[in-house]
Amino acid sequence: MVSIADIEAAQARISSIVKQTPIYESRLLNHWLGHQVFFKAECLQRTGAFKLRGATNVLAKLHETNELPSRVVANSSGNHAQAVAFACGQFGIPVDIYCADTISPIKAAATEFYGAKIHKFASRDEADLAVAEAGKQEGTLWIPPFNHPDIIAGQGTATLEALQQLEASDVAPDAVFAPCGGGGLLSGAIIATKAKLPNAEVVGAEPLNANDAARSLQSGKIERLEGTPNTLADGAATPSIGELTFEVLQQIDDFYEVEEEQIAYWTQWLHHLLKLHIEPTCAMTMAAVAAWLSDKPANQKVLVILSGGNISQASMQKIWQQDYLTQPPIMNPDA
Amino acid sequence: MVSIADIEAAQARISSIVKQTPIYESRLLNHWLGHQVFFKAECLQRTGAFKLRGATNVLAKLHETNELPSRVVANSSGNHAQAVAFACGQFGIPVDIYCADTISPIKAAATEFYGAKIHKFASRDEADLAVAEAGKQEGTLWIPPFNHPDIIAGQGTATLEALQQLEASDVAPDAVFAPCGGGGLLSGAIIATKAKLPNAEVVGAEPLNANDAARSLQSGKIERLEGTPNTLADGAATPSIGELTFEVLQQIDDFYEVEEEQIAYWTQWLHHLLKLHIEPTCAMTMAAVAAWLSDKPANQKVLVILSGGNISQASMQKIWQQDYLTQPPIMNPDA
Repeated sequence: MVSIADIEAAQARISSIVKQTPIYESRLLNHWLGHQVFFKAECLQRTGAFKLRGATNVLAKLHETNELPSRVVANSSGNHAQAVAFACGQFGIPVDIYCADTISPIKAAATEFYGAKIHKFASRDEADLAVAEAGKQEGTLWIPPFNHPDIIAGQGTATLEALQQLEASDVAPDAVFAPCGGGGLLSGAIIATKAKLPNAEVVGAEPLNANDAARSLQSGKIERLEGTPNTLADGAATPSIGELTFEVLQQIDDFYEVEEEQIAYWTQWLHHLLKLHIEPTCAMTMAAVAAWLSDKPANQKVLVILSGGNISQASMQKIWQQDYLTQPPIMNPDA
Repeated sequence: MVSIADIEAAQARISSIVKQTPIYESRLLNHWLGHQVFFKAECLQRTGAFKLRGATNVLAKLHETNELPSRVVANSSGNHAQAVAFACGQFGIPVDIYCADTISPIKAAATEFYGAKIHKFASRDEADLAVAEAGKQEGTLWIPPFNHPDIIAGQGTATLEALQQLEASDVAPDAVFAPCGGGGLLSGAIIATKAKLPNAEVVGAEPLNANDAARSLQSGKIERLEGTPNTLADGAATPSIGELTFEVLQQIDDFYEVEEEQIAYWTQWLHHLLKLHIEPTCAMTMAAVAAWLSDKPANQKVLVILSGGNISQASMQKIWQQDYLTQPPIMNPDA
């Protein structure tokens, strides 16, 4: 399976294309919680999300052995589409994206700007069938969104880079938190953390309304969502995790299912405290942080991987319709 | 009056307290406009706004001559209050903030966290009277929000720092844009730019609904807003500019009055493109940029000072109630 050596190799391989993103803290939040939270700002990654790491790793690895495809295809209407389009642009490879015609115009525009041709279908299922067909053509590579060793290794560089940045400031986090959609980011976080900080816990978060990973971990087999889940955390609405990510996720230390109101609450607060335009999918992770911290001694240090910053107007409207900024997240009795 | 030497001295003086904030670009925005826009991200400044620069400069300058006051007072319910509170904390000086009781609980909480005692009054006028009285006490210093040479010099460091960062990348902007509330930031931008890049234009922006500065520049005397203006750009809703800032503003090259819908439009787009939680007050400036660019040859380089990132839930709700992300800001015929 994927090892820390694979993540380290990925890091070296993608470093000229992928940005080193900063780590931010909020003094006020730390004061209110009585703990220290470090946020890895992958929303400031090129294309607005960590997904660029995995897609770039797939192509950069093929480039090393002169095995680059003559064409790339992918099925996604979100951050993976933009990541694949951008990465292909870096290697000069034509790329076709297959998606449902419900793709937001703004995501489609960005994907096309990065150089992709977009093919729209009446449903996601039809797009998935079409990409499978297209991927069979000679010289064509299908880049899947998460269930691939090189994707997992690429996404793992977000956590590895963050741990290196913290180590440079003499900080060893007690726990690392990441959201779970298909499980690529979280699997990478597990592999990087268990190798570099064996005593640190790795904790995942998922919307209660799209809790296929939590149910899969409970039942011991991959469970699938029925229909389209109703959640603000659209990046975690993936129908199911993959076989590879499911295997890695067995090593998770804790996993939280988050209610929609908590997702909106933490999105407002992280926008306000960090001054970053952060996806509900990653703000959701703070609900897991707060729950995890609730029975821990003071002054825990935790790392949160902020996965991205691509949010639709419809989601922003929902997130900000109620005022959660009147209810600060105070857990510290001295705050 | 304030000179570039004052701004350079301020820069050296405040460098250990104030962050060097990054400059961001959006490739997609540049492509759509056919120009290059550099954003100075003062929303990532400590306390969430450029205001910390001026407040820190006032105190750091007094510290040099052992003239620090034993107490500081200020009247503000916004970014200036947080800046003064934070700066006083750095110098160990007790600080009292006078404001109307309409201050948002979240801004009050942050101001108190930075160490200030808050005094609430039934109106802003009553708070202003009380601070004037408090400022007369022995050993007490009143730090005004903009009409003070050391405040203007401090705010000028935002532009000076940005010009230095751009110069390090061999970029000399054709124009520098900043919003105008009391005029401190914009005055500092004028002084820094005219000294460092005499050929660059400096352009201001103000809400049409709070256009006291535009009217003052037209009439040749300081005009005051009647009542509380209805604008999303609350940082530019100051009743009037000051005598010092009015004098500096005479050198402005261009000035735009921006409609509310344009303010909401650009706030959505800058949140989305830059992944930053940016105040409507500074997003507004992009409307001036677009208007200014409309009759310029291609490939202009402009610098925009993003003033801050403190936004109420009520403003966020208004900004995101309509979908402007379906209407990209395309000016480039080749885009």
